[in-house]
Amino acid sequence: MANPEGAPSTGPVPERPIIAVTMGDAAGVGPELCLHLLEQTSFSQHSVPLVIGCRTVLEQVAQRLGRALTAPVLDKFPERLDGPAVLDLPEPFRGVSVAPGRVQAACGSAAARFIEAAAQACKNKTCAAMVTCPISKSALNLAGIQFPGHTEMIASLTGARDIAMLLYSEKLAVTFATMHQSLRSVPEALNVERICRVATLLNQNLRLLRTDRKPRLAILGLNPHAGEDGLFGDEEVRIIKPAVQRLLNLGLDVEGPLPPDTGFTPQALQRFDGHVALYHDQGSIPFKMFAFDSGVNVTLGLEIVRTSPDHGTAYDIAWQGKARPDSFMSAYALAARLAIARFRHASGRKAAQTA
Amino acid sequence: MANPEGAPSTGPVPERPIIAVTMGDAAGVGPELCLHLLEQTSFSQHSVPLVIGCRTVLEQVAQRLGRALTAPVLDKFPERLDGPAVLDLPEPFRGVSVAPGRVQAACGSAAARFIEAAAQACKNKTCAAMVTCPISKSALNLAGIQFPGHTEMIASLTGARDIAMLLYSEKLAVTFATMHQSLRSVPEALNVERICRVATLLNQNLRLLRTDRKPRLAILGLNPHAGEDGLFGDEEVRIIKPAVQRLLNLGLDVEGPLPPDTGFTPQALQRFDGHVALYHDQGSIPFKMFAFDSGVNVTLGLEIVRTSPDHGTAYDIAWQGKARPDSFMSAYALAARLAIARFRHASGRKAAQTA
Repeated sequence: MANPEGAPSTGPVPERPIIAVTMGDAAGVGPELCLHLLEQTSFSQHSVPLVIGCRTVLEQVAQRLGRALTAPVLDKFPERLDGPAVLDLPEPFRGVSVAPGRVQAACGSAAARFIEAAAQACKNKTCAAMVTCPISKSALNLAGIQFPGHTEMIASLTGARDIAMLLYSEKLAVTFATMHQSLRSVPEALNVERICRVATLLNQNLRLLRTDRKPRLAILGLNPHAGEDGLFGDEEVRIIKPAVQRLLNLGLDVEGPLPPDTGFTPQALQRFDGHVALYHDQGSIPFKMFAFDSGVNVTLGLEIVRTSPDHGTAYDIAWQGKARPDSFMSAYALAARLAIARFRHASGRKAAQTA
Repeated sequence: MANPEGAPSTGPVPERPIIAVTMGDAAGVGPELCLHLLEQTSFSQHSVPLVIGCRTVLEQVAQRLGRALTAPVLDKFPERLDGPAVLDLPEPFRGVSVAPGRVQAACGSAAARFIEAAAQACKNKTCAAMVTCPISKSALNLAGIQFPGHTEMIASLTGARDIAMLLYSEKLAVTFATMHQSLRSVPEALNVERICRVATLLNQNLRLLRTDRKPRLAILGLNPHAGEDGLFGDEEVRIIKPAVQRLLNLGLDVEGPLPPDTGFTPQALQRFDGHVALYHDQGSIPFKMFAFDSGVNVTLGLEIVRTSPDHGTAYDIAWQGKARPDSFMSAYALAARLAIARFRHASGRKAAQTA
């Protein structure tokens, strides 16, 4: 699998796209990750980060860590941007002193505003992608915000339906037909349409990320040994095989239903560019074995590009400079790559239509 | 986790135990694995293998591979054994020419006889353990034998109930509360008794294998994030937490229910000596990622010791000398270790009772 660092090396990009980065929950590790990002220069050839957060919180965290916030601070979205900057949305924190590592209503309220602003900026093309630092579900709830998390909120803000999560790392890219629901409820939630939908989304995104060849996808089975022809469960026969056939008819390079435990062996990881898992732990167990610190979460099926690190607020180590930035930096690099690839893909289609 | 090679280094063993090794399906890779074993000398300090199979098949395979069967061939179980040998049970093959890589009734019939003889020899203490080469379910069925596999047959021959499978490798030891059944049927099959039973069996066997400290066991959850306090499924609250509490009351060092996808990270593998998985792929996905070629299958809950390689008959490469012996040799070494450790454990208890 191609390295997520760095931009694609061919095709026209008119200027460096602005990548919106939400600061997340102010009491978590988001602020220090944003400070780390603002100090980097390695991505300056291909994109410009705009941190959407709060200046006073960033300054407070910087001071704790013996650093300084040196990036310019803006009070509205810029038309263009030459280097890393902060967009300051201070309102929810007026008169509030944020304490690290604690669930606070102001942090929940602010986190939601950062997300709204970033999603809006992506919709109106001011920004080319968004990267979200971790938020606290409890803080959102304290602030009276009913969304259970980022994905649902961004889907609602952008009017998306039938989205899917992609866990992406150098070694493994896995998307999910079902996600945060009980194992008991999984078999009833599976159907041909949903499997085809997530496989198609995975295929589209892998084609953006690796242009050298057609992606080869593994579609996992649900049951032990993929059911052994109906001996242990009939979902392979009723649902998964028909989905694989439909995907083959659509021209995708897919194979399945694979016995789940042979889908992630070293040999299988060599053969496949991406995996469709049917339930949360079927994909997340192998993913976290490989990429506990460096995995990226990508929301598929949105009109905008959105990535996030594959970890939470980490309240226990917040504001201490201990947070490993690997997953977050990979999320930033992948967002930039996807944004640029989407632009090139759209330009290519326009050019083809004009010609 | 301790190396499965080699015998424990302390305590009395009266003489080298005889380990029964069944040749498995004659048309599969079993015969060449047995030939490989008979040529080894590395284990001769701690045990003696007795291959229970068919001389003519072994000679036929040896000839194909440019080797020879040099070990002595016996026609009945020996009282004692000084070096590797073959026990010849030729009956099912009389007048039959075995073809490699094909399902044949004679092979199924013979495979069953090898297993019966080995189990009987273990029951009457002629042999200290049995290692089984792969068999073909289809060949068994052709021969009119109704057991779906080894485990069920050996359980029946030894009168065992409530057994469990352990997948064992250097990095990971995982046992299963449920095994070959549909994912849909798993939640209803779980209960406190079964989880405690398999955890206790795992604990006993790990104590035999590593005497340096009390084993620390991970009990996995069933649902994503271990259910998030009942948000995605209630099995953790209703079944798994009560099982963990009962195991703690019994004095076992257990932790759980763990979110399944954090149970197999590099950090978790450092912390735990063994895992209890609740369904087949929850444990076999991570196991096969680590130990696709070298894993050992141990049947827990039998009165005898039984191990097997974690692969099938491999008809496609049978009699070609291509089969990797790693998993089989690990299975042999682990059977010898378990047999010797059981003997020492029993001797220790007797000595304590006498004193």
